[in-house]
Formats: sequence, C-alpha cells, structure tokens
Amino acid sequence: MKKKAVCILSGGMDSATCAYIARQQDYEIIALHFDYQQRTMEKERACFELLCNDLEVINKAVLNVDFIAAIGGNSLTDKSLSIRENNLNKDELPNTYVPFRNGVFLSIAAALAQKENASDIFIGVVAEDSSGYPDCSADFISKINMAINSGTGENIKIHTPLVNLSKSEIVCKALELQVPLQFTWSCYQSNDKPCGLCDSCLLRKKGFEKVGIIDPIL
Amino acid sequence: MKKKAVCILSGGMDSATCAYIARQQDYEIIALHFDYQQRTMEKERACFELLCNDLEVINKAVLNVDFIAAIGGNSLTDKSLSIRENNLNKDELPNTYVPFRNGVFLSIAAALAQKENASDIFIGVVAEDSSGYPDCSADFISKINMAINSGTGENIKIHTPLVNLSKSEIVCKALELQVPLQFTWSCYQSNDKPCGLCDSCLLRKKGFEKVGIIDPIL
Repeated sequence: MKKKAVCILSGGMDSATCAYIARQQDYEIIALHFDYQQRTMEKERACFELLCNDLEVINKAVLNVDFIAAIGGNSLTDKSLSIRENNLNKDELPNTYVPFRNGVFLSIAAALAQKENASDIFIGVVAEDSSGYPDCSADFISKINMAINSGTGENIKIHTPLVNLSKSEIVCKALELQVPLQFTWSCYQSNDKPCGLCDSCLLRKKGFEKVGIIDPIL
Repeated sequence: MKKKAVCILSGGMDSATCAYIARQQDYEIIALHFDYQQRTMEKERACFELLCNDLEVINKAVLNVDFIAAIGGNSLTDKSLSIRENNLNKDELPNTYVPFRNGVFLSIAAALAQKENASDIFIGVVAEDSSGYPDCSADFISKINMAINSGTGENIKIHTPLVNLSKSEIVCKALELQVPLQFTWSCYQSNDKPCGLCDSCLLRKKGFEKVGIIDPIL
C-alpha cells in the first residue's frame, strides 16, 4: 500500500513544486489549502483546484482559517496596511509576516494527517529567500516536528524539500517535474495580473530570469 | 508595566482556574476562546463571557476554528458518533479526542501572543485525568514551547499550572482563588443540565465529592 502524505498547497509555485516532489516519491496525496481572507484568496484557490486535478490527489481539504485575519497584524489580510514593496535584503521583518503562520498551518496539517492516517507532511518552505520569516527555518521545522510527534503519539515526518533551494533552483525543479506553472500564483497583491513589485513577485521574477525562461503567468 | 499573558479560556473549570492563577501572578490577561461547533459551544461561550467580566481582561478574542469540525474524526463535533461514556481508566484513546487540538490551540495562542506583545501563555491542561490525550503531556508542552520560540523569534513561556494536579486539587485551588465556578461548564454533551455520564462530568463529580462540597452548577 502506498504511503499517504498531507501536502500543504497554497497555489504558489513553491508549494506546487513541493507537492509534485511528493508525487514523484510515490506518495498518495491529500492536498490541504487554507483560505484566510488574504488579498489573493480567490486566485490561489482556483490554482489549488487546478493543481489538485493535475496531481490526482486522493483527498483534499479547503479549510477556513479566517481567524488569522481576526488576529491581524499583517498586510496580507489587513487592508489598512499597504504591502511594503521591494523589501528584499532588508533586515527587519516585513509587514507581510503573518504571526507564526507556518506553526498554525503545520499544526492543522498534523491534525489532518492523524485523522487520515498519513505518515508524512510536505510543506514548501524556503529558508534563504523567504524574506527572513522565522517560521521558515530548518530549526523551526525540526522543533515543530518533535512537538507534533509528542502531541499526536504518531511518527509523522515533515518534509521541506525546497528549504535550501534558491528560487531559480525551484524553477528548474518545477520544469523537471512538469509542474503546470501556469496554474500557480505568487503575487501578494493582485488577483489578475501579477503586480511585479511585491517581494513575492520580485523573487519569482529573479528566479525565472536566472533560468532564462519566460514565466507562463506573465 | 505589567506583563501580558494570553490565557486560553474554554469556559471549563480547568481553564478558568488557570486564568485566575495568571491573574494572581499579576499578569494582564488577554482571553482566548475557540468556537468549533462542539456540542456545548453556546454554553461554553456564555461561561467565557461571564469569566472575562469577572477577570477584568484587557482584551479578548473569540476565534472561529470550525475547520476542526471539518477535519472531524471526533465525537465532540461529529454528531454521527455518540460520546463514549464512562471511559475512565481504559487504555485506548477515547473518541472525544480531537486530533492534536492543543497543538492547534497553542499555535494560534502563540500567533496572538506575538501580535499582542504578550510574553506568556496559560493553558489549563491536566496530564493525569485528561483521558490520556497525548497533547496534554508535559513532554508535548515543552516541545511545542521550543517550536513556538524558534518559529516566532520571541521568548514566550507556556504555563501549565494544573498539569500535575488532580481534579480535587483543582477544585481546592479554584475555591482558594474565588473562581466563580457557577460560571464554568465541563459537560461534553449537554447545554442545560450536565449529563453526569460523560468522562468530563465524571471527573468533575469525583473532584467535588473528594473535596466534600456541592458543585454550584448542579
């Protein structure tokens, strides 16, 4: 019997590539998507559904985590803050930081994994170019993995196959695995055409430029 | 300036006593309550509001975590399962177990603590008589605390002052701190009169009997 993995799938390029890595490793995929009133919620949700079809997932869950907007304090959900642009290479935490978002997402993924008897969780965190979010570090992933196993009584493994890759390496990996990049979305700000100015657009652009190919969503 | 603590307050006797311990230790209290379509949601919410008034909290958050019901797999939210009665002293995990609930709750509490600049989190977990839930153990709390500090970049401390107490010791502590026990609810099943049969009712009853006083909610 194939092993099952919960794959957190936002609709972005990183999490999509991560899920295709899980499929390549022969896992049956349970796709997990979060809606939290982020500015690009509709576009990300549409990409999620298209990716699920292409991935032939065995199960999927779209969970409403609006409470993240209720906690607030970040510009992805709080429309009174503007998304700070061109923040790369700055030291302070950008205002797109959602407090402990990956901690919340991985805890929910662990609950779903326990319910579904899945032995593995895949999450597309990237340490180097993730604007310095502390909940993207390898140290954090290792610690939350220990907490999950203690708190569930299971032996679940969190996989972060992208953690040490650069954006251009992720683009290469996606091409290798035939990830349908036209079904992914990275912009923090816009639901139709990528703004080209937010951190996430800038990182994606740099990645494609370095590889020397055209981004299919442009 | 007083330190701030996020206190998870379900409306039950344990979490209420825990919040009064935080108040006794001179914290300013941010009360955090979760609604997740549990059978006794309305009663617990009403108790939460009464306790917040009495505690004079500086802030409160009631967060909708319905996704717990969407994940399902437990009898508190899945009305197609009956709550297993008189399960105490049995080895297997009872069907009132919500997968990794305290992991999810503590991760959300950490996000709120970071947003609110609170240095501490209080949660009323009880190791001995909590029907053996793995996410109530001291080992789990210590590990999720390390994960939270790594993933937030903060130095937040999780307090579990009840973890080694028996139910009768909790009743004594509540009396000592003048917790308004008439504003607390423990029954898993009923919103009006405690059923007297679920694990939670049985534990509460044993606690009061041992102390030799009448439970004000009966």
